[in-house]
Amino acid sequence: MNKIQGLIAATFSTFHEDGSLNLAQIPAIVDRLVEDGLKGIFICGTNGEGPNLTVAERMAVAEAYMASAKGRLLVFVHVGHTSIAECRALAAHAEQIGADAVSAVAAFYFKPANVANLVASMAQIAAAAPNTPFYYYHIPALTGVGMDMLEFLQLGEQQIPSLAGIKYTAATIHEYQACLNYKGGKFDVLYGYDELLLPALAVGARGAVGSTYNFAAPMYLRVMALFGSGQLDEARQLQLLLVNMIREMVKFSPIPAQKAIMEMLGFDLGPTRLPLVPLTAQDKVQLRQQLEVIGFFEALKGIRFAGSFPSVSG
Amino acid sequence: MNKIQGLIAATFSTFHEDGSLNLAQIPAIVDRLVEDGLKGIFICGTNGEGPNLTVAERMAVAEAYMASAKGRLLVFVHVGHTSIAECRALAAHAEQIGADAVSAVAAFYFKPANVANLVASMAQIAAAAPNTPFYYYHIPALTGVGMDMLEFLQLGEQQIPSLAGIKYTAATIHEYQACLNYKGGKFDVLYGYDELLLPALAVGARGAVGSTYNFAAPMYLRVMALFGSGQLDEARQLQLLLVNMIREMVKFSPIPAQKAIMEMLGFDLGPTRLPLVPLTAQDKVQLRQQLEVIGFFEALKGIRFAGSFPSVSG
Amino acid sequence: MNKIQGLIAATFSTFHEDGSLNLAQIPAIVDRLVEDGLKGIFICGTNGEGPNLTVAERMAVAEAYMASAKGRLLVFVHVGHTSIAECRALAAHAEQIGADAVSAVAAFYFKPANVANLVASMAQIAAAAPNTPFYYYHIPALTGVGMDMLEFLQLGEQQIPSLAGIKYTAATIHEYQACLNYKGGKFDVLYGYDELLLPALAVGARGAVGSTYNFAAPMYLRVMALFGSGQLDEARQLQLLLVNMIREMVKFSPIPAQKAIMEMLGFDLGPTRLPLVPLTAQDKVQLRQQLEVIGFFEALKGIRFAGSFPSVSG
Amino acid sequence: MNKIQGLIAATFSTFHEDGSLNLAQIPAIVDRLVEDGLKGIFICGTNGEGPNLTVAERMAVAEAYMASAKGRLLVFVHVGHTSIAECRALAAHAEQIGADAVSAVAAFYFKPANVANLVASMAQIAAAAPNTPFYYYHIPALTGVGMDMLEFLQLGEQQIPSLAGIKYTAATIHEYQACLNYKGGKFDVLYGYDELLLPALAVGARGAVGSTYNFAAPMYLRVMALFGSGQLDEARQLQLLLVNMIREMVKFSPIPAQKAIMEMLGFDLGPTRLPLVPLTAQDKVQLRQQLEVIGFFEALKGIRFAGSFPSVSG
Repeated sequence: MNKIQGLIAATFSTFHEDGSLNLAQIPAIVDRLVEDGLKGIFICGTNGEGPNLTVAERMAVAEAYMASAKGRLLVFVHVGHTSIAECRALAAHAEQIGADAVSAVAAFYFKPANVANLVASMAQIAAAAPNTPFYYYHIPALTGVGMDMLEFLQLGEQQIPSLAGIKYTAATIHEYQACLNYKGGKFDVLYGYDELLLPALAVGARGAVGSTYNFAAPMYLRVMALFGSGQLDEARQLQLLLVNMIREMVKFSPIPAQKAIMEMLGFDLGPTRLPLVPLTAQDKVQLRQQLEVIGFFEALKGIRFAGSFPSVSG
Repeated sequence: MNKIQGLIAATFSTFHEDGSLNLAQIPAIVDRLVEDGLKGIFICGTNGEGPNLTVAERMAVAEAYMASAKGRLLVFVHVGHTSIAECRALAAHAEQIGADAVSAVAAFYFKPANVANLVASMAQIAAAAPNTPFYYYHIPALTGVGMDMLEFLQLGEQQIPSLAGIKYTAATIHEYQACLNYKGGKFDVLYGYDELLLPALAVGARGAVGSTYNFAAPMYLRVMALFGSGQLDEARQLQLLLVNMIREMVKFSPIPAQKAIMEMLGFDLGPTRLPLVPLTAQDKVQLRQQLEVIGFFEALKGIRFAGSFPSVSG
Repeated sequence: MNKIQGLIAATFSTFHEDGSLNLAQIPAIVDRLVEDGLKGIFICGTNGEGPNLTVAERMAVAEAYMASAKGRLLVFVHVGHTSIAECRALAAHAEQIGADAVSAVAAFYFKPANVANLVASMAQIAAAAPNTPFYYYHIPALTGVGMDMLEFLQLGEQQIPSLAGIKYTAATIHEYQACLNYKGGKFDVLYGYDELLLPALAVGARGAVGSTYNFAAPMYLRVMALFGSGQLDEARQLQLLLVNMIREMVKFSPIPAQKAIMEMLGFDLGPTRLPLVPLTAQDKVQLRQQLEVIGFFEALKGIRFAGSFPSVSG
Repeated sequence: MNKIQGLIAATFSTFHEDGSLNLAQIPAIVDRLVEDGLKGIFICGTNGEGPNLTVAERMAVAEAYMASAKGRLLVFVHVGHTSIAECRALAAHAEQIGADAVSAVAAFYFKPANVANLVASMAQIAAAAPNTPFYYYHIPALTGVGMDMLEFLQLGEQQIPSLAGIKYTAATIHEYQACLNYKGGKFDVLYGYDELLLPALAVGARGAVGSTYNFAAPMYLRVMALFGSGQLDEARQLQLLLVNMIREMVKFSPIPAQKAIMEMLGFDLGPTRLPLVPLTAQDKVQLRQQLEVIGFFEALKGIRFAGSFPSVSG
């Protein structure tokens, strides 16, 4: 797989009101993502509540997204789990259904003791999908595992034959830059903090994975286009609006808040699962109002209507 | 279930060299625990590498221990998992095979936001085994979830009909004491830090769950007996030896180090699973030497030979 | 100095309403502490807002307490500071005014990197008061420095000629027990968590330093006496009341809350300094009510009236 | 004071081998900083070991730098301390000697409980230098105080009349961007992570304070110039070299490592104070070799020789 240029949405899992999976919502979500210019989807990660699902449910969600993507989007399947044995089952399944990539977070109950231990763990997982590119999913704020990622690449390239790169979800853009440039850019290092997309572009980011790309990708693609054409002031202004949107969002629990925004945009994805709790009706009203005050919906509509968000090309 | 008096071993999971389950080791382990005066076993918890196993493997381990216990030991099954749906499957299975209790840690990827959220999550889990006493497993050092346990009991008694108590694994013995005394001792609060057993006895602990009870229970039972009969100096001296034993053990990774000690005592439990790494041969030699220097094996043998470790009675 | 048996109050600093020092309050406080059976006082530590004072103010507070103690109480002066040069000035001053001991926390802006670094730092401080016993003040919850204290003693005894012991303020009573027993009890290890006094007694604590000993020492001395005479149930019951008192207290900011309790008992110590904020009038009412509900004042009055709290003897 | 455009060096404190201040080194350092195109200096902050100095020493260091700057550099004096009373003395002194700005970290023993508490604390400090612009020094990795900085500005502008901005030392560039744009850019928000200068420029940074600007400012000024003229690839390449330089540096204790680099460049600043420990001779050799391997010294010399680092103009 070549290096990815463009945006990958960390898709949601969709539920009925009783908390059971509701896969029927997925085709419409995927069509919208294609329409919005996404390059790919990242399934059952943090935003997709992967850790809240059973292994069987994770496989079902992956299959549903895969079936809807129909080759229009690159499909990443997140297979991280505390149990490497479960990871391997998920990875083998992902390869079997034709996923374009698999990815896993570090174990997060018993945490790896050092980089070598982390690489050994990831090697066992990747080996279950030997023909599918593997991306380590670095997200220390949630796993509590904050190893040096350059050291990970140095050891990983020796022990993980399918290592393709990292989904890098941390604010330490200097380390991200070092990873991007390791061995002349050998690995595909996708940036994972949506609110930092513009500064990441400045150090060379070409591809990114994020949760708000589910609904605001056209705005981020515009940021990328503006940055690419040297219109820095405009890029900053638009990125600032996105920063402000995320600031409003994280006043609530982020994943339920994003499901609420999806609902405001016409997509009813159902509740989240415990320990995540959906926004109350009152919270939703407040969030909508705040997003209106900062002009988020208007800006999104304007950019979508203008249609100037072709997928970024190499 | 009445309040438990005595010790519960947080049992190991046993593997072949290739990492697959080796259930054949379990009967001998259980016989030894019965012989050593244990009151119960706690299966697939932290020490049992529950998070390293698949759901199917956890069920198999629980069944094997259950079959070996044959009513001689109380059986607790740990059903904690990031996914409540998997927890529920494990809990239902535990009830079906006749476990005496189920227990679960807090979710640890998405962490509960407050006590109410934690109680709501535990209520969903406990409801899948409605006829089996439920113990919340409080272990903030591993889950990162450090709620006030008295508040947990206050809310939990309203929302979790089967709530029996807490497996309290934290050094905050003052909070433990408050929980022990909640509503005149309504709940069974089992203490979970072996190296703090004596101070926990001082505030009223009667039951405890721990990993070193797998091999050193006779020594701890002697501590309890000495404390009970007012021989405080002797109790302190023996507890100090156990503190020193644990200090030597935790110079290595604790679970692999305990498996090494089990091997020194004649029980080959096989390796651990990644990210846990077994001790090297050299580490084992060093650990054994240190334990010999402090007189651990000799003391254990002496107490076992004396046989003065009847199970504690009410 | 021999090992201390009994209680040491971590005394308050006293202010006028405008925040300037009000040393006139100190004699009455000290008389009460003598009357209540305290063995000593610990000046300008955490509870004494040492870090909120200037060096000159810390010296003035130390002198005022020293003058009031008049040999009736052992005087510990806390000299910890981010700057070792300031620590040394404070330590030299403490020795000059005849303090019985000096004590210092670890540096807490630039934190020591390892035990050797911590010992080297403490050695520089202790050397400025070479004829005064030095106690390292271990309080990882506030300094963020959580070194192994047994290793500290092992290195410290070689490099700090005046090392007398540790003020051990952490819940890890197993490590405390190991320190107490290092080289047959070579060092004086004073326990520093009031709510854990009873469990600390169980492992051999004889002396303790704490903030609630400023007003509730008779109750704690009764706990010690009950424990000493084997009346364990009564000791537990009284310690539980103290645990409950502290639970009510820490619902507010602990130091201001304790100043409020002192006020309820007739001692107006003035406000705290920023960033510590005094309780509001409403908070004080609520705290008083809660303490009344649990029977704290009544129990304190009863025990003080009974007068059965002679200082603990060796 | 207008918004600062350009770089401010967080200067070192200089010592004799016995650890006493050696102010004689300061004029040469300052001349070099002027020559290198710096806009200002930040005195007695983290890099200047402010917390390791006495108040009197901090004043002496500030005076020495002030005297050497002779109006050629803006002078910021860091006055942060655990004691607000000491902060106020330092702030009043800074104003008296004509400093261009004062700055303070949050209290870091007793940490502020919320933004209002932090603002109240900073207001007391700033009021002691009422005619001097005040910058809050946000550095959560060292203070452990990680408040929302936009909320700080919102409350701070009401309660701190002299509030000029923030020295923002954190990787969260999205929040930095939000602060930069608060009320149309009302405040001067200086960026404080050298290794993230380029991404910070992308969101609008114009001024920055940092420690490696003491010796590598010409390279960073070149990054700024390249970025300003749209030569993004060249800017990235140079920033990457600086990231790599810092990666080598932080393999050692950062402040001692930077003093070692200054020594390699001909400036002997003396040792650091405990708990900071100077690099060993062997460490210095290793650090120098690694910096040579990545081409750091050569690049620095080339850019300094070319001389193309005029101070950035507005």
